[in-house]
Amino acid sequence: MASADDLMKKMVSLCKRLGFVFQSGEIYGGLQSAWDYGPLGVELKKNIESSWWDFMVRRRADVVGVDTAIITHPDVWRASGHVDNFHDPLVDCRKCRARFRADQVEGTKCPECGGELTEPRDFGLMFRTMMGAVEDEAAEVYLRPETCQSIFVNFRNIVTSSRQTLPFGIAQIGKAFRNEITARNFVFRSREFEQMEMEYFCRPADADRFFEYWKEERMSWYLSLGLKPASLRFRDHAKEELAHYARACTDIEYAFPFATGGFGELEGIANRADYDLSAHMRVSGQDLEFIDQVANEKVVPWVVETSGGIGRTILAVLLDAYYEDIVDGRERVTLRLSPALAPVKAAVLPLSRNLEAGAAEVAGMLRPILPVSFDVTGSIGKRYRRMDEIGTPFCVTYDFESANDRSVTIRERDTLEQVRVGIDNLADLLCDCLRKGWRPAVEKAGLAAAGRASE
Amino acid sequence: MASADDLMKKMVSLCKRLGFVFQSGEIYGGLQSAWDYGPLGVELKKNIESSWWDFMVRRRADVVGVDTAIITHPDVWRASGHVDNFHDPLVDCRKCRARFRADQVEGTKCPECGGELTEPRDFGLMFRTMMGAVEDEAAEVYLRPETCQSIFVNFRNIVTSSRQTLPFGIAQIGKAFRNEITARNFVFRSREFEQMEMEYFCRPADADRFFEYWKEERMSWYLSLGLKPASLRFRDHAKEELAHYARACTDIEYAFPFATGGFGELEGIANRADYDLSAHMRVSGQDLEFIDQVANEKVVPWVVETSGGIGRTILAVLLDAYYEDIVDGRERVTLRLSPALAPVKAAVLPLSRNLEAGAAEVAGMLRPILPVSFDVTGSIGKRYRRMDEIGTPFCVTYDFESANDRSVTIRERDTLEQVRVGIDNLADLLCDCLRKGWRPAVEKAGLAAAGRASE
Repeated sequence: MASADDLMKKMVSLCKRLGFVFQSGEIYGGLQSAWDYGPLGVELKKNIESSWWDFMVRRRADVVGVDTAIITHPDVWRASGHVDNFHDPLVDCRKCRARFRADQVEGTKCPECGGELTEPRDFGLMFRTMMGAVEDEAAEVYLRPETCQSIFVNFRNIVTSSRQTLPFGIAQIGKAFRNEITARNFVFRSREFEQMEMEYFCRPADADRFFEYWKEERMSWYLSLGLKPASLRFRDHAKEELAHYARACTDIEYAFPFATGGFGELEGIANRADYDLSAHMRVSGQDLEFIDQVANEKVVPWVVETSGGIGRTILAVLLDAYYEDIVDGRERVTLRLSPALAPVKAAVLPLSRNLEAGAAEVAGMLRPILPVSFDVTGSIGKRYRRMDEIGTPFCVTYDFESANDRSVTIRERDTLEQVRVGIDNLADLLCDCLRKGWRPAVEKAGLAAAGRASE
Repeated sequence: MASADDLMKKMVSLCKRLGFVFQSGEIYGGLQSAWDYGPLGVELKKNIESSWWDFMVRRRADVVGVDTAIITHPDVWRASGHVDNFHDPLVDCRKCRARFRADQVEGTKCPECGGELTEPRDFGLMFRTMMGAVEDEAAEVYLRPETCQSIFVNFRNIVTSSRQTLPFGIAQIGKAFRNEITARNFVFRSREFEQMEMEYFCRPADADRFFEYWKEERMSWYLSLGLKPASLRFRDHAKEELAHYARACTDIEYAFPFATGGFGELEGIANRADYDLSAHMRVSGQDLEFIDQVANEKVVPWVVETSGGIGRTILAVLLDAYYEDIVDGRERVTLRLSPALAPVKAAVLPLSRNLEAGAAEVAGMLRPILPVSFDVTGSIGKRYRRMDEIGTPFCVTYDFESANDRSVTIRERDTLEQVRVGIDNLADLLCDCLRKGWRPAVEKAGLAAAGRASE
């Protein structure tokens, strides 16, 4: 198997070649650590987001969603502590003008040119910009460095409008921006990134219990994406490592090949107590207490937060699915994506160019029902390999018999098994395969999976 | 019916009270013209986005998607002409320091205080910020003022990776930012907004034909959302009104109550010729020509663009669905949202608090299948009204017979008709109602819609 370094190189190259991830602004030399999702990447991303939203919001009675603005009222970040505290200490080289994080420079000389360094200065990690026409201080605004604060400042409006009672959660998927000095490792850490965050509000006495509950829920979601259990672990933060607002924090980590110690953070689950709501009450002067009509008391709820990154999840899913083997004497690369996440669910492939019209009809029949690809170029073996490489779970081959027997052959990506199925039953069988898995669906249909697909 | 002004006031108030749209940063006095989508708003927004994505990308063989970064390489905006030309001419009052668009000031005195005005100065409409650690000019970047340029600069990577041939399209949904002086009319015009754009690349000779084709396609999408045909129209741009890059442009307009002339822009469809690809070729020095292997020639494709706004579409959908009538002697407000767009598809309502456990079981059974609400507070009539007001198409009433006959009553929002259905068939019937409509689904199930629901 590939070394850690090799694997990342292969992944970055695969992502560009197949259209998962491109460097942003590449034709202008590229913008450092900025990434664009291509045709396959955007579908994978949407599938992950919609899986998270279903799991965290739509299938639960106790969580609602929001979608808030990126440019946020500056007082939000004064209250949260970001304006005062969200800094990195930086040093500059007086000679070559390079800049470094003070805690990452060994010795007191410039790592680039050996020049003398300045004293450390605080460098704000928030992106600032000017909003509105009048150029006074009031117009200075920030791109949000996290999505959760917009949840806290909307707390009262959400409680009033959605009539929730404790415990309940508010969830959001959205972009956040941090002007990191050391953005790196592909989409693992970029300055513009996307978060999936949920704040769960509860009575203070229940916070410990819900912290444990959400740890398990969140791990079960990552497992539901198809990530291997051995690639995932919890890492509890030690007391001295906790952020000042956190009573407890646990990371869910994935075995990223570049990670020091073998694992890197996918998501943090934290007990934030009443830190945020209390801070916003103090600075805004507004009452954000919850009126518990059952217990007849007012309470500032405590919060259990789950905070994951989409870029990291996409990278983990791709790395975990990457698989190399030898088929018919030739190397094969497969993305063993779970069918729910695969950008293309089925490919329709005519065995010869002469069969294009009939096969196109089959593709046209499937397209309103599931994301389908149609490919006529190259040998059938080459087209199978292309579909394996982008993670397409099912290939539908239209052959010289198909026009006569109104049937096609389905080939499954991982087992390479195949079945013959009537065109009229194809859509139903594929939908069943996506819902229940290959073997159960094929058995239920009374079909026999016959050997491996030849190429 | 309400006057135009009244209708907008009612809509803004309804949006806040029910959780569709909140002013951003409200507890800090609010950030001008910035909006957050609440629990119902985010579901409506997601439903609109996913309808667009299905219509424009997933159900078509000839369009792929992308999802690109907001902070973009500055050369993108030099090539596109935005750095040089995307300005408003502004004047300042020397006395009170207020600022105005020069073309909107009558006379030469300040409209606020009568003070003297400065000469007009160009005011850039792009948001600027600094990226990276080194504070030289290279680090100045822009928040994208439109999503389409990222499509053009990724053109070559997308063609290579997705192996498309002309004609084909690239689509994107995402945020854009313009520092407008006159942001107003609720979510119709805000400085941070979300676009749904598609660039369709074709041979130059085919551009006129595809321009007509996409006009019709886009109109049919707005109609598919349930907007009334009489609320929509095309408006062709006159020659002298065309942007410098456009050969032809048509707006799809909606009858917004605040619009001068009765209609305001929802979407623009434009023939941009080869303006964008040629500009990026010139500035980047890269070859963005398309190699047409069939015709064996190189061509800079022409582009037909469709560019709509999500905020505007949400506002049009809400305004168009707003409906007042009198039921049982009391005023009723209904959002007649199409079932596909409704944030909640069905509400389960126990007739009395004693029936809560049985009704909760029904809600729990439905929740994995469709977005469902469960409400036990207040009279049944009050709960029906609440559901009408947020646009929920179906209310499921669990009554004193339900435990015995394992049946519930479904009430339809617009006709107020009701049917009795077995709990075991409820999920299937509701899914059918969502797919086919109320009457066809009820007839197919062999049920009789019996009179109007009593309250």
